[in-house]
This record gives sequence, structure tokens and C-alpha cells, in this order.
Amino acid sequence: MAEQWYAWFNGRIVPEIEARVPFRDQGFKYGDAVFDTTRTFNHRLFKLDEHIERLYRSLAYLRIDPGLTPVEMMRITEEVVTKNLEHVPKGEDIWATQRITRGIVGDDKREWPDYPDRTVIVECRPLPYRQRARFYRDGIEVVIPSVRRTPPDAISPRAKTHNYLNLILADLEVKEKNPDALAVLLDTNGNLCEGRGSNIFLVRSGEVVTPNERYVLPGVSRQTAIDLARENGLTVHEADIDLYDALTADEAFITSTSFCVCPVGTINGARIGDGTIPGPVTKGIMDAYVNLVECDWVGQYLRYVNE
Amino acid sequence: MAEQWYAWFNGRIVPEIEARVPFRDQGFKYGDAVFDTTRTFNHRLFKLDEHIERLYRSLAYLRIDPGLTPVEMMRITEEVVTKNLEHVPKGEDIWATQRITRGIVGDDKREWPDYPDRTVIVECRPLPYRQRARFYRDGIEVVIPSVRRTPPDAISPRAKTHNYLNLILADLEVKEKNPDALAVLLDTNGNLCEGRGSNIFLVRSGEVVTPNERYVLPGVSRQTAIDLARENGLTVHEADIDLYDALTADEAFITSTSFCVCPVGTINGARIGDGTIPGPVTKGIMDAYVNLVECDWVGQYLRYVNE
Amino acid sequence: MAEQWYAWFNGRIVPEIEARVPFRDQGFKYGDAVFDTTRTFNHRLFKLDEHIERLYRSLAYLRIDPGLTPVEMMRITEEVVTKNLEHVPKGEDIWATQRITRGIVGDDKREWPDYPDRTVIVECRPLPYRQRARFYRDGIEVVIPSVRRTPPDAISPRAKTHNYLNLILADLEVKEKNPDALAVLLDTNGNLCEGRGSNIFLVRSGEVVTPNERYVLPGVSRQTAIDLARENGLTVHEADIDLYDALTADEAFITSTSFCVCPVGTINGARIGDGTIPGPVTKGIMDAYVNLVECDWVGQYLRYVNE
Amino acid sequence: MAEQWYAWFNGRIVPEIEARVPFRDQGFKYGDAVFDTTRTFNHRLFKLDEHIERLYRSLAYLRIDPGLTPVEMMRITEEVVTKNLEHVPKGEDIWATQRITRGIVGDDKREWPDYPDRTVIVECRPLPYRQRARFYRDGIEVVIPSVRRTPPDAISPRAKTHNYLNLILADLEVKEKNPDALAVLLDTNGNLCEGRGSNIFLVRSGEVVTPNERYVLPGVSRQTAIDLARENGLTVHEADIDLYDALTADEAFITSTSFCVCPVGTINGARIGDGTIPGPVTKGIMDAYVNLVECDWVGQYLRYVNE
Amino acid sequence: MAEQWYAWFNGRIVPEIEARVPFRDQGFKYGDAVFDTTRTFNHRLFKLDEHIERLYRSLAYLRIDPGLTPVEMMRITEEVVTKNLEHVPKGEDIWATQRITRGIVGDDKREWPDYPDRTVIVECRPLPYRQRARFYRDGIEVVIPSVRRTPPDAISPRAKTHNYLNLILADLEVKEKNPDALAVLLDTNGNLCEGRGSNIFLVRSGEVVTPNERYVLPGVSRQTAIDLARENGLTVHEADIDLYDALTADEAFITSTSFCVCPVGTINGARIGDGTIPGPVTKGIMDAYVNLVECDWVGQYLRYVNE
Amino acid sequence: MAEQWYAWFNGRIVPEIEARVPFRDQGFKYGDAVFDTTRTFNHRLFKLDEHIERLYRSLAYLRIDPGLTPVEMMRITEEVVTKNLEHVPKGEDIWATQRITRGIVGDDKREWPDYPDRTVIVECRPLPYRQRARFYRDGIEVVIPSVRRTPPDAISPRAKTHNYLNLILADLEVKEKNPDALAVLLDTNGNLCEGRGSNIFLVRSGEVVTPNERYVLPGVSRQTAIDLARENGLTVHEADIDLYDALTADEAFITSTSFCVCPVGTINGARIGDGTIPGPVTKGIMDAYVNLVECDWVGQYLRYVNE
Repeated sequence: MAEQWYAWFNGRIVPEIEARVPFRDQGFKYGDAVFDTTRTFNHRLFKLDEHIERLYRSLAYLRIDPGLTPVEMMRITEEVVTKNLEHVPKGEDIWATQRITRGIVGDDKREWPDYPDRTVIVECRPLPYRQRARFYRDGIEVVIPSVRRTPPDAISPRAKTHNYLNLILADLEVKEKNPDALAVLLDTNGNLCEGRGSNIFLVRSGEVVTPNERYVLPGVSRQTAIDLARENGLTVHEADIDLYDALTADEAFITSTSFCVCPVGTINGARIGDGTIPGPVTKGIMDAYVNLVECDWVGQYLRYVNE
Repeated sequence: MAEQWYAWFNGRIVPEIEARVPFRDQGFKYGDAVFDTTRTFNHRLFKLDEHIERLYRSLAYLRIDPGLTPVEMMRITEEVVTKNLEHVPKGEDIWATQRITRGIVGDDKREWPDYPDRTVIVECRPLPYRQRARFYRDGIEVVIPSVRRTPPDAISPRAKTHNYLNLILADLEVKEKNPDALAVLLDTNGNLCEGRGSNIFLVRSGEVVTPNERYVLPGVSRQTAIDLARENGLTVHEADIDLYDALTADEAFITSTSFCVCPVGTINGARIGDGTIPGPVTKGIMDAYVNLVECDWVGQYLRYVNE
Repeated sequence: MAEQWYAWFNGRIVPEIEARVPFRDQGFKYGDAVFDTTRTFNHRLFKLDEHIERLYRSLAYLRIDPGLTPVEMMRITEEVVTKNLEHVPKGEDIWATQRITRGIVGDDKREWPDYPDRTVIVECRPLPYRQRARFYRDGIEVVIPSVRRTPPDAISPRAKTHNYLNLILADLEVKEKNPDALAVLLDTNGNLCEGRGSNIFLVRSGEVVTPNERYVLPGVSRQTAIDLARENGLTVHEADIDLYDALTADEAFITSTSFCVCPVGTINGARIGDGTIPGPVTKGIMDAYVNLVECDWVGQYLRYVNE
Repeated sequence: MAEQWYAWFNGRIVPEIEARVPFRDQGFKYGDAVFDTTRTFNHRLFKLDEHIERLYRSLAYLRIDPGLTPVEMMRITEEVVTKNLEHVPKGEDIWATQRITRGIVGDDKREWPDYPDRTVIVECRPLPYRQRARFYRDGIEVVIPSVRRTPPDAISPRAKTHNYLNLILADLEVKEKNPDALAVLLDTNGNLCEGRGSNIFLVRSGEVVTPNERYVLPGVSRQTAIDLARENGLTVHEADIDLYDALTADEAFITSTSFCVCPVGTINGARIGDGTIPGPVTKGIMDAYVNLVECDWVGQYLRYVNE
Repeated sequence: MAEQWYAWFNGRIVPEIEARVPFRDQGFKYGDAVFDTTRTFNHRLFKLDEHIERLYRSLAYLRIDPGLTPVEMMRITEEVVTKNLEHVPKGEDIWATQRITRGIVGDDKREWPDYPDRTVIVECRPLPYRQRARFYRDGIEVVIPSVRRTPPDAISPRAKTHNYLNLILADLEVKEKNPDALAVLLDTNGNLCEGRGSNIFLVRSGEVVTPNERYVLPGVSRQTAIDLARENGLTVHEADIDLYDALTADEAFITSTSFCVCPVGTINGARIGDGTIPGPVTKGIMDAYVNLVECDWVGQYLRYVNE
Repeated sequence: MAEQWYAWFNGRIVPEIEARVPFRDQGFKYGDAVFDTTRTFNHRLFKLDEHIERLYRSLAYLRIDPGLTPVEMMRITEEVVTKNLEHVPKGEDIWATQRITRGIVGDDKREWPDYPDRTVIVECRPLPYRQRARFYRDGIEVVIPSVRRTPPDAISPRAKTHNYLNLILADLEVKEKNPDALAVLLDTNGNLCEGRGSNIFLVRSGEVVTPNERYVLPGVSRQTAIDLARENGLTVHEADIDLYDALTADEAFITSTSFCVCPVGTINGARIGDGTIPGPVTKGIMDAYVNLVECDWVGQYLRYVNE
């Protein structure tokens, strides 16, 4: 694509390529920054207020002052999204991400006396339809890496920060064998927790179960899936679940901002249930999700299957 | 200071202020980067080869290809240091740091087609003589935060990466009460491990003990202190040590690239030993360190005490 | 007893003594096999479908293919039970167990080219009325061993496999002191979990509590007791419970396929509650259990008390 | 191969196919049994006494009485080996394994009144030259599974028992992706421990390191490698080592009774050191091992490379 | 105050100063004793029966026989309280505490042949209005120490015993920096648990959450606050909560026998919510508490603010 | 015995029965106190200086100021011992114990305005020759309880304090089955650590091993045994040891101030080694200990065997 993408960078909208961060910024030197990502459906932002609320909780956890109110942050996000959607085709949607760093602190400011007190970026990206299309037909291949999720008394997995190496190490381990695999990590206690930006759900005997929030990012899509499942008359538990649950499940699915709800085909190479993709419970939640957002995101993905 | 500082940035030496990283760089988005820092004594780099060797181990752990050999990295470092030392007075020394990110990957390259395959920065900073001077007279105040060091099966503390939030959370907790305090964290097992870029040593009954390497960055200064202590005829153990050891020690000291060896005055507010700063064993190691590097860094710090 | 007992062995019913397993079978060399056990009441099998469902979950966890459908497995079980009941007196009942191994694999098949792809055994045993009769009068003596239950990230306690050494070590430790004692282990986190094939329940202030499923085999009798307690109007919790709960309980009882519901007299030698055996809540659940299965199994046990 | 293999089974040598274990044997029902395996070099048993000593420690741990003295067990082993070697070509060697179960206990003896008090088997197998030949040329591919090694307070990894499901689960996970991979597990603390019957060693800066004995079977080949390394003038540490050590090592190798010493090519897909197979330190220990046993087992393996 | 305080000591009411314990008493030598504390509102004891019930559970846990029935213990407590209230002004209330030791055991009785079989003390103290008044205006400053709460498999935090060093170490650590701070410890798993005799609650999005009972003393005031919150129409969860929950809460409060409900101002120095003291939900529960006990304890505290 | 025993109590020597502690003393209310115990051989105190040094480390850990120098504490101890030995027969020896509490603090001083700033007691007891005599003939029966030793990040086992409930719970559990048994606890990691005031040693293949100091009180007798073993030419390791080590040991023994060195007969009911009491290595260390202290304490104990 040759279109120009734009980002809000420290106060104004600029071509993405102009948004460059001083290497002295804590956000670069230490990943000392937070972010959050929402997406559009039919070019409209989905649950922006809930994402911004979570963003401000991440800021509170790290004691970073964004210098903007939540309302301002939402307005800026809408503005950047509108600007970027100008050249996006109707049938496709985009991600929108806010990023706030602690800025340049202490002696490091010496050479950068005029730099703002923190870096604030709001930016957009197209959704990865092509790379993921196959998952909606065949199911994602979930693999459990040996790397464990960082425990909450070291740093809480519930804050969405720029410190992603724990999840990247997991991905490196898993993708080295199978570039299409999705790593879902175990927590310190050996329970399933989460993958990079994604939550896992299991279905057994018609009930739905997903890991407790404590070791996982409280995904907005996760909550949407829980709500829709309950509206569909299903029982949903948040519980400690492990590999026994995974290998004996009837169905499994992943939720994330971009995946929405995506069926799982295998876990550690073992086929889940009878292999129907998606299973009936998963299908019901996917359909409800499509109805909720009034956008056939499943069709959007599947359109790319044979390209 | 009005002097200009310079950095090597993706292939050439530029004024520091020109070294800006695309926000799409993995190093910014995820802290997906490594670094290492050495310093000069009398304007000469100290143990650069050992720091570069550790840097390349950090790279191997994260599977990042720096695109440069260790020898090239050393040469670049020397060059940047020489350039920056031009305006540094004789009696003062500087830090030199290498930083390598994983660069911009996958779809993110869309808008940045010409950006190099990774970001490489080599940069210098003056040492914080003024802020730390008092520690050499009174001893550092060490405080143990409630935040625990990230365990090695999540991400190894031995790789020096741009993911510092675990250590920053510890610092926020400790400095909120006492801005001069140094946080030294406990590891997952409740043993003392390390502070931000610094190692801790205890002295009891004439023997020196420091935490095992597994949960701590294998500091070059730490190893130098161990070697000097042994040359001074002292027994040095690497061991699991805890708060009982700390509160019943005769002396304690911190090592780091910039601190070299710095006496500890209190741990969690309790005076260590009889309160002599530095204690005789610590003093012996400090003296040996000064002799080794042929530079009176203690004097450099103390000169700022009354400013 | 001089009666002949029969087992289904790799395709046909044979006298038990002919059911012998090649030592090269994974089931023998490594305990690489699963099993499940149900029982009869009044010579009728109890909840066979739920036991077979659990058996197939154990198979899924270990990725063993039994070569038989659940329906076939149930039919075979019925057949073996019928055959063995021929000589069992009316007032007594029996156990029925299915066992499936991974068979002989790889090079080990060299000398056994014609052996089936796995070993399948279905077998029966008389219930141990005599040994256990006293427990229904006096209560079982529960003892907590120092051996901890294997954690789920090593091997899930919820799969019923031929790897029982963890439980056997617990039994050896406990029975050495008191051959009649029942070992109930703590899990990795120090919570009560389960004994060999048996679940534990506590009663306090009229509420019933039993360990969470994650660290314990999800007993069919456990679920039956939970259901009956709720039908009796009791509140039942699944929770993390520990020795404090045990030592301060008003009543305690054990459930298992053969015990059904058996009152606990002491835990680590401390009398539970006021020492009534069974306590009123336990008695209510025992009565309900007798009603449900239309068989006075309590009377069956107690008949042997004075023999 | 059409040759007949023989085993000692409860008192006499019989064709292997006659050695069948009652399904009521604790060894079958619960994996309640121990074993140990040694091998021949040039048709002579290697360190049989050390293997038998370890076998009797496993028996002591499980409190199983073998009914035979160590000397008798050695004599029987020699006898079985001699019988089986009759048809083994000069250039090839074999494994010899002792297995002792707790036998049939309690009520289970009802139908088996004449069965011995325990099952004792001594048996032989050819070495898997063909399957492993490639590893000596290319290095083994080591993969760390998510399954953790059973902790010692549940059941000690140092006793060699018939409870292998923990290791089998690890193998299933790893081999599903890569049938040639060797699983090396992490222990409860996140340290490298061992694979199925195999120990791991790392080499860095000319020093050799291997996991502490506590979480690993104290391999006889492991000890032989340690001894030979020290005789070669190398420093050998037993230590807690983790993935950082593995990914930053210069060389790595595996030891086991059958592997002796086998170079590692990759760990989690990352090439170890500069990729020389075997590395110089590993090569030195392999050569010393060949000298010690006066048998070119490396050549034996490599002969099969191109078959 | 010059008034005389009285205590029940081994059978009779004496001036407090006469209640002295033999140093050979297990209660002194080992803290081998339990206690419980209730208070008066308007000079009437609050929920004495629930405190005495908990006291007897602590006794059961430690297997100490108090030699008195719960009814006798209540009667004695009433008697001691009545005696002490004689000189307490109407607008103030007091604490009442029962203490029972295991007495002098074994050889230690040698010199104390006539001492009773255990020490029983019932005693009263004035409430610390003055010291705590400020907390009701400004909020308590909660600090998380590095010391972790003793895990239940070592000794249950739910028994209220004379072994308080774990909590005292936490207090020493926290108060050294800030004498007014209240230490709230993390449990073994890194979750918030409790402070010395006090429970913590968080409020977020109008829901109330407090740590699970397992790692915390099941406070009577804690239960009262839960009940009142539910009567106020609030949802209350018992859950694993951590520092992320704390730092992102809208409100927080502490409960204890003497605090009743006290607002939290800061946690680790970070202001909770928007800083209103008390927050609206906390205020609602405080008001309901005042109504329940028909005593304006908030006013009692605040009266001392400016003294 | 009808003799009068004396104690030093807050400044003077009094009949033991006059040493009574205010119930408001932190030492009584919270076990907020430390102690240490040495003994005499031939009426002479053994290694008093090392015990006093450890006592002052315990004080430092708890930040209690004893108000006396170590030299004064030693002098007082000598004085009390001399006083008490007056009526002790030549062939028998005694214990001497120092105890220091934090005293009465804060508001609690109200009724006790004149009480000293802390309670200091120095007291003596006869050794329990009769109760333990049999252990020297038959070996102690060691039992591992389910209760785990308190972890160092909650409260260090290395400080000898008046908080003994963790050890008392272990004793209650073990002695309920066998009043003569000695509880030796596992630490948090499942390693053997220590019993109440006693350390454990194992002997295998002529080498001696004992748990690392971190989880155990650094016993003075433990160090004496280590020193004597080394002087006897034995290799002694401090290491993580577990039940596998215990059950496969050739010999085992216990050290403590009063036991000195006492052979172990069984661990969890399993006979250690070939059952010789004491085993040859243990015997050698016992003999050396007798020589060192010039007192036949073994004979002293054995004299009571048949009484």
C-alpha cells in the first residue's frame, strides 16, 4: 500500500514517519510506557471508552502522568482514526493505539531541554486480514511454551506496558517450530493464562471457562465474549485452568481486539474436540459478536483465505 | 553544561539530539532491545571487552542479530568515547552505552521501507558525581521493596535489556519515601538479588558474600570486586543470602559500573555493623579498586560532597 | 473364596489368571496407561457412563487411542460384570475397572510382532467390606503425610493413570505408623487435596466444603455427594482448604467409589467436632446416598464390624 | 532381526515373549516398580556395580524388598547378558535392564496364590544405532517443553521408577513438532534438569556445568563425563542453570547410558556456539570416553549415518 | 490516666499489675498461646459470641485445652469489662482480650508444682483514639513491606496466636520510614493479605473486594463490613487481589475491631482514587456501621483530631 | 529434685519462681523476644562466646536493644550457672539460657510505669538425661511432619526467637503418633531443614552432608560436628538434601546443644543403613566430641537407659 498513514505525536498529527522518539526517552531506554489498542468495525471505533479506562489504569499502576484527560485522549483518538480512514476501503477496518511514555527524566534532559514532559503517540494500523485468514477456516494452532508469564508481584500482567520481552521470548520459542502458532503461556502456578494480546477460552459440556483475571490482561474482547456467551444462555466461569482442561475440552477459542473470537484447532498439536471449526458453542458466540458490532468481521477474514 | 554530546546512530556519529527512533521500532514498542554500559577511568575505557562480551550474550538470549561483530562494536565505542571526551575535563569520567533493537519487523515496515534492519546506538553520558557524592561519606541507604525481581523462567535477570519496569516499580516504591534510597530487590525465593544496575555485597566475620549469579546480572564491577577481595586475601562466597544476613552483617557495599564500590550505611533503616563508613574490609577493596584502575574515583565523588 | 474371577483381556473374556501383560508394554515399563473404576449397587453398575467419560478424558490427556468407542467400552464392562456377578451373593457388590495401556511401541515390538496395538483389560474385584467395616462405626483416621501431591504442570492429578507412586509414597509414610490410617495429601500450595482414590469434605456451621477440582481427581462419588448435599438444602463450596479448616471442622467425611460416604474420626490424631460418628450432616448425606442407589451399603459394611 | 532374545523372569531365563506380568501386579497397576539399565562396550558390561548400587537406592526409596542381594543381581545380569550376546555381532553392543516390582499385594493375591512375592525381570535390548546416528554428525536438537519435572517432595527424580508419565508427557509435547527432538525439562524452580534418561551439560569459556543432582537422576554416564572432564584438566561445576546459560553456551552435550556423550546442535531451535559438532571440549570428553571404555562407540553410531 | 485497670488472672480478678506469667510458661517461652479481642460500643460488648467462637477455633488449631467452656469465657469477659468500665467516661469505649497459654509443661513444672494447667487472662485496654484520630480525616497511609505473611502450611494466619513476629517485622520495616504507616503484607503468592489485626478492602467501579479468607484472619469487623456493604446493595467479592488492584482502586479502607472501618489515603505513597476521604462507598459503609452499633465511633475518633 | 533453682531477672538473681513477666510485655503478648541456650560439660560452659554472638545476631535481626553488652551477658550467665551448679552432682550438667524481650511498649506502659525497658532473664535447667537415654542405644526415630518450616522471607529460621509455634505444630503432629519421635521439618522447597533446636546430618559413602544454613538455625553443635568430622578426615557438604537422601543414607545423626551428637535409628519408620547404632562414622564424631569437651556425655546419657 502506498497510502500515507498519520499519527498524533506530542500535540499534532504528522505523517507516521515523522514520529520519532529521542533515544533518551524512558519509553525507549526501559520500555517505561503504556499503550492500549482498540479497533474499528465498519470504520467506527469499538468500546473506545473501555479501552481508555484500561489505559488510565495502566498509567496509574506505573504512576505516569499522561498530561491529558481521558476525554481528551478519546477525542484525539477519534481524530487520528478519522484522518487515517480516509484511504481505507469500506470493507476493511483498522487498529488505533495510544502510547504514553514517562518521557526524558533527570540528567537525561540536558541535551533535550525543550522536549515535552512525556511522549504521547496515537497511531493506526491496518488489520492483518491476510496473515490470519486461514485461522478462521482451520483453527489456530495454540502451543504452550516453556517460558512462564511474569508473576504479578514482579510486574502485573494486567497493565499493558511497553515491556513485552516475556511474551516475545514465548513467541520466539513457539514460532521457531511453527511460524503460524500462537503461544499461550502458563502462569507461575502452572495455569493457562494468556498469549500476546490474546485471551483463551475453553468449552466443555456446554460450559465456557477462561482463566481468572489476576494473571491476564482483562481483555475488552474477552469481556465482550463473556457477556455474549451469557446472553446466549451459557454458563461462563473464570477459573484456574490447566493443560488437562485444554486437552479434554470440546472446543477452544481465542479472543483479542483484532481476532474478536477465533476458533482453536489444536493445542500442543492435539486436536481439540471432534475437530469441527468452529465448534457449535464458539460459532454461536462468533455470530453474536458479528451481530453486536454489526460488521461481518468473519467474512472479512475469510475473504483472504485463498489469496 | 552547554557542550554538545554525540552518539553513533545507525552508522554514523551525530549530535545526540538527532538520534531519534521510529515509534514502530520493536525497541520502542516492546523494549525489545539490549544494552550494556561501561565507563572510563582517566578517560580510558574500563574492561570494554568484558562488557561487549556480556552485550553479545544478551543478544544471543533474545536472538537479536546486531549486524556488527564484537570487534566492530568495540571500535565504534572507542570512537564515540573519544569524540565525547573532547570537552570533558581531565578529572571527570563518562559512561558509554551500546543499544541494539530488533528494529522494525513485519507489516510495521510498510511506512519505513528504508529503515535499517535494527537500530544501533552508541552513546555517552557524564557520571552523576554530584548526586552520589554523599553516599561515599555517609553510606547508601538500601531499602528492600515489596516488588520481587522477575524470575528467570519468565525472563532472565542476567540479560541486560530495555525491559526495566520491574526495577522501575521497585524504585518508585522505595524513592517515594526516600529519594536517596537504593532499592535492592528480593528474588522469587526471598533472597537478596540486585538493584537497578547494581550488586550487593555483605561482610561478616571477615568473609565477603554476594548473591549467586542466577538471579542477578553478572556485573563486571561485581567480578572486579570479587577478584580484588580475593587478592586482598579475603574469602568470597556466592550464596543465597537474605535479610537475616543483611541485618547481621558487619559491613555492606554496592558495586556497579559507576559506583565501582560504594559503602552501605543502612538497610531498611537499620545501621549496618558499628556504622563506620566505609568499614575496613570495604575500604580495603575500594583502595584496591582505585589502584587497579589508576584513578581516584573516590576522590572524584567526594569532591562534590559539599557543593 | 474359591470362585473363579474373569477379565476381558485384549478382546475376550478369560479367567483372571490368564490376563498377563508383556513386560515390554508401556503400561508395565512406565505406568503409561489409564484406568477407571466403578462399582455395583444391588448388582447394578452405578453411573457407568460418567466413569467412562472420565476414562476417555484421561486417555485424551495422555493421547492414548483405546481402539474402542465409549459405547463399546460400556458394553464390555457390562458383560464382564455380569459374568463375575454369577457367583457373588445378593447382599454384596463388586468393583469393575477398565485399563488401557499405550501398548508395545517402536523397537520393543521386535519380539512381539503380533501383540495388539494396546492392552485393554476390564476386570472385577469384590469390595473390601471386612477391612473397612470399622470405619463406619468409628470414623476413618485421616493423616496428612509430608509427601505433597504432584503438581498439575508436572502431571495432572485429574487424569487417573497407572502412575501411582506419589500416592503410594504417601501411604507408606502414613500406614507405617497406623495401618488403618488414610493419607490425605496437601497440594503444592499447602491445601488439602485428596487421598488415593478418595476425596475429602469438611462441614462447618452447617456448610459443606471440599477442595477445588484442579488438584484432585474429579470423583464421581464426590459429585454425587455434592449433588445430594445441595438437594438436602446445604450450601456446598469448592474452595482452597487447609489444616486450619480441618482441625476446626464440625464434621468431615471421605467419598470414593467404594466408600461412597464415610465419616472421618480424626485428622492427624485430633478428634473432629464433638466426636459423633457420623455427624448429623454426614449422616444426612449418607442416608440420601443410600436412597439414591437403593442399596444399604452402610449396612453392608457394618455387618462385618464384629467379624 | 530374527534372533530370539531372552530374559530372566522370576527365577529363570526364558524367551522374552514368555515374560508376562499379572495385571494385578503393583508394577502394572501403579508403576510401583524400579529399574536400572547398563550397557556393554565390546560385549562387556560397563560399571555394573554402580548401576546396581543405584538400583538398590531406588528400592530403598520405595521400600521394596527385591529378595535378592546386589551380588546375586549382578550375577543374574551377567548371565542374561552372556546368553543374549551369543547372537549379537562383535561390533555392536546391548542394553541390560533389571526391573523389580512390589508384586501382588493384599486381596489381589486371591486369584494368584502361588505368584512370587515380587516380579523380578532382567532383560536385554539392542542399542538404537540407526535412529541416533545422525545426532553424532549434526548434534541433537534439544527442546524445552512446558511440562515441568516432578518436584522431589512429590516423588524424587533421583529414584529410577516405572512412573514415567511426567517424562512421557514432555516427550509427547516435544516430538509432536519434531520427532527427532529430545525433551529436556525445567524443574520446579525453572532450572534445566534432565530428559528421559539423559543429563545435559553446557560449556562456556572452557568450563563445564551441569545441573545439580537434586532434581536429576544421578546418571552413571553423567559422573563418568564429569570425571573425564576433570582428568582433561577442565573445571566442572554442578549448579542451577537456566535458559540464559543454555542460549549463551559455547557447546552443549547430552550424556546417558546409551548416548555416552552426544553433542547438542540446537536448544529451542537456537544454534549453540559457532555450530561446530562436536565442539572442541565435547570432542575431548568423547575421545576420553572412547579411551576409557576401549570401544569406539562414536564410530559404531556414525557407521549408520548414511543407511 | 491514673485509674486502676483490672484483669482476670487464673481464676480471679486482680489489678492488672498483679497479672504476671511464669517465664517457664509456654506462652512466654514460645508464644504458645492464643488470644482474641473484642470491644465495646457505648460500653456494651460487640459480637462477643463470634469472637469467642473464633478464639475456640484458634485453641482447636493449636490443640490447647482452655479448661473453660465458651459460655464461661463469655461470662468472665463480661465481668472484667464491667469492672473496668466503672471508671471509663461515657463517650469512650474499650478493648477486651482473652489470652490462654499451654501453661508450664513437662520438666518445667519442677519448680512450679502448684501452677494451674494453663494461664488464662482476660484483660481490658482503652482504645487509642488520640493516635488514630487523624486517619479518619486524612486516610491511613498503607505501605506494603518486603516481609511476606507466613504461609498456612507453616502456621495458619487464621489462628490468632501469640506468635506475632512476622507481623512485627513488617511493622518495623514500614514504621521506620513513617511511624504512622500501616503495614499490609503480601502473602506467599504475592497477593495482598492483611496487616496486624486489620483487613483491607478495595472499591472499584462500585464493587467491593477483599482478600480471600485463607491467608487472612477472618475478622469479625471484616465480616460486619461485608454484611453491611451487601445490605447497602453493593456487590462484595472475596478474591485474590494484588498491587495492580490497589493502585487502580477508586477507594480503599481498613477494618479491625478498633478501627471498625477506616479510609485509606495512600498505598505505597500513591493517592487512592480522587483523594476524597472517605470515598462515597466507604462513607456509606461507615455510616451503616455507626447505625448498626448505635454508637458514633467516627465522631469519637475525630474529636481527638485537633488535640 | 527438691533443690531451689535461681534465675537472673531484670538485674538480680532470684529464685526461679519469682521470675514472672507482666502479661503486657511484648515477649508474652507476641513472643517478641529472643533467646539462646548453651550447656556445661563437667560444670564448665561450652562455647559461651559463640552462643552469645548468635544471641546478639538474633537481637539485631529483631532490632531489640538488650541494654547489656555481650561481655556483661557472658558474665551474668557465668554467675547464674555458678549459683545453680552448687547443688548439681558432679556427673551431671545443665543448660543455661538467656532471654531478652522488647519489654512493655507504648500505651501498655500506662499501668507499669516503673517496669524496665525490656525483660532480661538468664536461667538454668537440668539436662533431660532420663528421657533421652534410650536414643543413644537405639537411635532417635525421626519423622517428617506435613508442617513446613517458616520461610525466611516471612521470618528467618536463623534467629532464635520466642515464636516457636511452627515447630510446636510439627511436634504435635509427630508426637501424637509416637511420643518419642523427633520432628525434622521440610523447608518451603521440600528440603530437609531442622527440628526443634536440632540439626540433622546424613552419611553416605563415607561423606557427611547437612542442610544449608539458610533455612536452619546455625547450630553451634552443628558447627562443632562439622569441624570434628573434617578433623577426622571426612568430607562434609552443606547442601540441599531431601527424603531420597534420607532414605538411602548409610547413617544419620542429630546435633543439638543437649544431644551433642545422637544417632538416628529410623526416618519415617524406615531403618537407616544396616541398623548399627551408632554407625561407624557417627561413632567417630561422637568420640571426637567427647574428647573435645573432655566429658563423657554419652556415658552420662546411657547410664539412665535401664532406669
